[in-house]
Amino acid sequence: MIVKEGDTVYLRSKKNKFFIKVEKDKIFSTHKGNIDLNQLIGKKYGEIIETHKGEQFLILKPSLFEIILYGIKRNTQIIYPKDSAFITLKLGITDGMKVLESGIGSAGLTIVMANAVKPNGKIYSFEKEEKYIQQAYKNLQLANLEKYVEIQHKSLEEPLPENFFDAGFIDVREPWLYIKNIKNSLKNGANVGFLVPTTNQVSKVLESLQEENFLDIEVVELLERHYKPVPDRLRPEDRMVAHTGYLIFAKKGI
Amino acid sequence: MIVKEGDTVYLRSKKNKFFIKVEKDKIFSTHKGNIDLNQLIGKKYGEIIETHKGEQFLILKPSLFEIILYGIKRNTQIIYPKDSAFITLKLGITDGMKVLESGIGSAGLTIVMANAVKPNGKIYSFEKEEKYIQQAYKNLQLANLEKYVEIQHKSLEEPLPENFFDAGFIDVREPWLYIKNIKNSLKNGANVGFLVPTTNQVSKVLESLQEENFLDIEVVELLERHYKPVPDRLRPEDRMVAHTGYLIFAKKGI
Amino acid sequence: MIVKEGDTVYLRSKKNKFFIKVEKDKIFSTHKGNIDLNQLIGKKYGEIIETHKGEQFLILKPSLFEIILYGIKRNTQIIYPKDSAFITLKLGITDGMKVLESGIGSAGLTIVMANAVKPNGKIYSFEKEEKYIQQAYKNLQLANLEKYVEIQHKSLEEPLPENFFDAGFIDVREPWLYIKNIKNSLKNGANVGFLVPTTNQVSKVLESLQEENFLDIEVVELLERHYKPVPDRLRPEDRMVAHTGYLIFAKKGI
Amino acid sequence: MIVKEGDTVYLRSKKNKFFIKVEKDKIFSTHKGNIDLNQLIGKKYGEIIETHKGEQFLILKPSLFEIILYGIKRNTQIIYPKDSAFITLKLGITDGMKVLESGIGSAGLTIVMANAVKPNGKIYSFEKEEKYIQQAYKNLQLANLEKYVEIQHKSLEEPLPENFFDAGFIDVREPWLYIKNIKNSLKNGANVGFLVPTTNQVSKVLESLQEENFLDIEVVELLERHYKPVPDRLRPEDRMVAHTGYLIFAKKGI
Repeated sequence: MIVKEGDTVYLRSKKNKFFIKVEKDKIFSTHKGNIDLNQLIGKKYGEIIETHKGEQFLILKPSLFEIILYGIKRNTQIIYPKDSAFITLKLGITDGMKVLESGIGSAGLTIVMANAVKPNGKIYSFEKEEKYIQQAYKNLQLANLEKYVEIQHKSLEEPLPENFFDAGFIDVREPWLYIKNIKNSLKNGANVGFLVPTTNQVSKVLESLQEENFLDIEVVELLERHYKPVPDRLRPEDRMVAHTGYLIFAKKGI
Repeated sequence: MIVKEGDTVYLRSKKNKFFIKVEKDKIFSTHKGNIDLNQLIGKKYGEIIETHKGEQFLILKPSLFEIILYGIKRNTQIIYPKDSAFITLKLGITDGMKVLESGIGSAGLTIVMANAVKPNGKIYSFEKEEKYIQQAYKNLQLANLEKYVEIQHKSLEEPLPENFFDAGFIDVREPWLYIKNIKNSLKNGANVGFLVPTTNQVSKVLESLQEENFLDIEVVELLERHYKPVPDRLRPEDRMVAHTGYLIFAKKGI
Repeated sequence: MIVKEGDTVYLRSKKNKFFIKVEKDKIFSTHKGNIDLNQLIGKKYGEIIETHKGEQFLILKPSLFEIILYGIKRNTQIIYPKDSAFITLKLGITDGMKVLESGIGSAGLTIVMANAVKPNGKIYSFEKEEKYIQQAYKNLQLANLEKYVEIQHKSLEEPLPENFFDAGFIDVREPWLYIKNIKNSLKNGANVGFLVPTTNQVSKVLESLQEENFLDIEVVELLERHYKPVPDRLRPEDRMVAHTGYLIFAKKGI
Repeated sequence: MIVKEGDTVYLRSKKNKFFIKVEKDKIFSTHKGNIDLNQLIGKKYGEIIETHKGEQFLILKPSLFEIILYGIKRNTQIIYPKDSAFITLKLGITDGMKVLESGIGSAGLTIVMANAVKPNGKIYSFEKEEKYIQQAYKNLQLANLEKYVEIQHKSLEEPLPENFFDAGFIDVREPWLYIKNIKNSLKNGANVGFLVPTTNQVSKVLESLQEENFLDIEVVELLERHYKPVPDRLRPEDRMVAHTGYLIFAKKGI
């Protein structure tokens, strides 16, 4: 694959790393010398580019993982890869599915789900805060996935298409208010997930799911622990993220 | 979608759940009555079937998640969804990629990666134990993903195509013996991952990766904690899986 | 120290371990031969005794840790050492203190706290279920700590001495019902702790503590992860206890 | 109990907290007004003192827990209460025991063990770095426990008394070099513990313990997770300490 104008490129030397957007007639400066971005255009991913001081950089195409963590601009707390990867597999999201999402936030999860439904499926993302929508769309463009997502400026209070979605994921403050509406919009047996940060919210979502006869209700949290990658002094990092959110999953029953 | 002969179907009543294979002229018996499997064929997923005693079951298509956990036959320890979902996203596996895997084991990870590279990519899975290959192939068939996987009865000691793979995942006992071979088979900047159960193996893999100038080396473990889904008595399950394996990730450098 | 009749003794060979009560004129049988318990009496702890077949056993005095895990009879879920050790240090329990406890359960925590207040302090343990009291007392006798504990058959609804306790620990189902009564019984600045298994209970205790102007309110949980002690295949155990309870701590304010 | 000159006192208002040393003719200034320390002397713990602006502070005696976390001066990484409480209980340390410790570091563990062996036991603490000893002694004085500890400027290479210690805890960089020496100094069946930060060190300690026929070898780590104490928005803190050290325990065999 060839580097084009507008691409986001991951430049990696032995010691340094940069995520940069490729623009014409621009110079990118590092303390190891400058890179003329015109020279990047037309190179193949995996090739090497040198600064004017001779420092070598690998030209890499960032993965979705890297785009989510280092590329997208965040206006909200994002759903992290440990969670978004699990959610997407747990919900069974795959090519061709129509998936309900609300809200879109910074599109951290949307990117992963959109990549899973392509080329024939679509994410229908309802976001009630207009201010997030434009940036979310740009973030999807960065990942080249915008055509698999339909963003609507809309709250979950408003009518949803009935018996329409193959799966859904809800990341709003009071999901229990909309469970009935969500249920009607899902096909029988469709998986739905929720992320909420507090135990009080978990309890309220569980109550609503039981009332609406959802099946296979589960609550899960994932903890990600990193180690210092030193072979002869292997040990966990001193600190870790202790909480991103509780994940709740269920299936629409009869 | 229509239920066909040979499908694996997830039948779910309010209280019970069954994964069954749809075969002609067979009766499936539950303590709530019998189901004539001929009547299942031709129904739509999401519809309801009744036992002769009137118990209603939803007819559901199992997700990949459910196929991995409840459907496939295991001859080996499988890689669990919490890990396989994260691995696939972390390695950046997506449509069109050529991915090295070794060994295939029971294909728990292969299923997730194959689903991610479809329709244009392929998993090249090298398994040195012949006895696992047939069952792994059947497990892929169950997930309807066999055409995206090429299984070879081959060890990582043997020659691999050079500069060929976009990503790789290695789950063998002594991965450090093959790092040089693996490196040669990867494209520049390609991500590679490893799962090993012991800290001693982690140290050895890290040493080899450093010697071969891999970049962005990371060691991670994921812990999955389940809660009893009872709204007014919310609490973690009493016991949990404490360890599946350490995950190591790196990128091929220059 | 000398082994006496009535002692509980930990016998440890290279391969086997037994906790036994030393009684006169009794034979203890192992598949490696018999031990005449009369011969144990008068031996020193740390000495060796042999079965009639020549198998050697170390004669050890069990620690409080071992008495709690292997010695006491449990009629209730006990508070485990990881928690009881932390509770006792966190509450600042030390020689001379008067400590409120309710309920006593199987005395797993009482043993640790009683050992900490001796020789001049006392645990005042209120247990409303009469059926637990006798066994709890026997368990304290096993640990030789019964004289540092005053057990009363009494609920926390009943009047408590005012401004009397230096610290307290509450392990009952609905602690929020008694917070005012508990507060009155504590000295200014005294630490109090609670163990509850569910998040709903945590919320209710926190609410009551805030209403009663407690200070330094904290919620903590401790997780204990064991490793297989194999030097060249070091790894966590496959499974672990995922939850014993949430610990809440606070200080009586003005 | 009465506040005396030289005491370390914990002053706690509704909003603020201070640990201060009580010195004659000094003024302690807060943004809520000044406290004349002469007026503190002679007050009872649990009483109230007011600043010249009328802000009320509870006068509290800090617990050992608070002294360790907020009072002692640290020249080294300390052993945290979650670990020191567990270590002390697991080793069975109680009144009258003679306990080997090396090194003393900042005495965070020594304080907890000294409090457990008093009034009749003693901690024998060997520290090879002279620079730590003076501060460790001051820290023990702060906890009023210095008379239960004998600090020696000495490495574990040097001869130890034989068959002398009832328990031991070792927190040095290469404990495996001294296992034989440590073993000889312990009584039969005595418990010994180790804290090491890396998995490589765990493996080496385990190897030495097996060679020297130690019994009941265990490896444990404790994780402490804190929650935001908000009743209607209960959730874990965003970040946590992910690693303090691996704990290894064993018993001297025959």
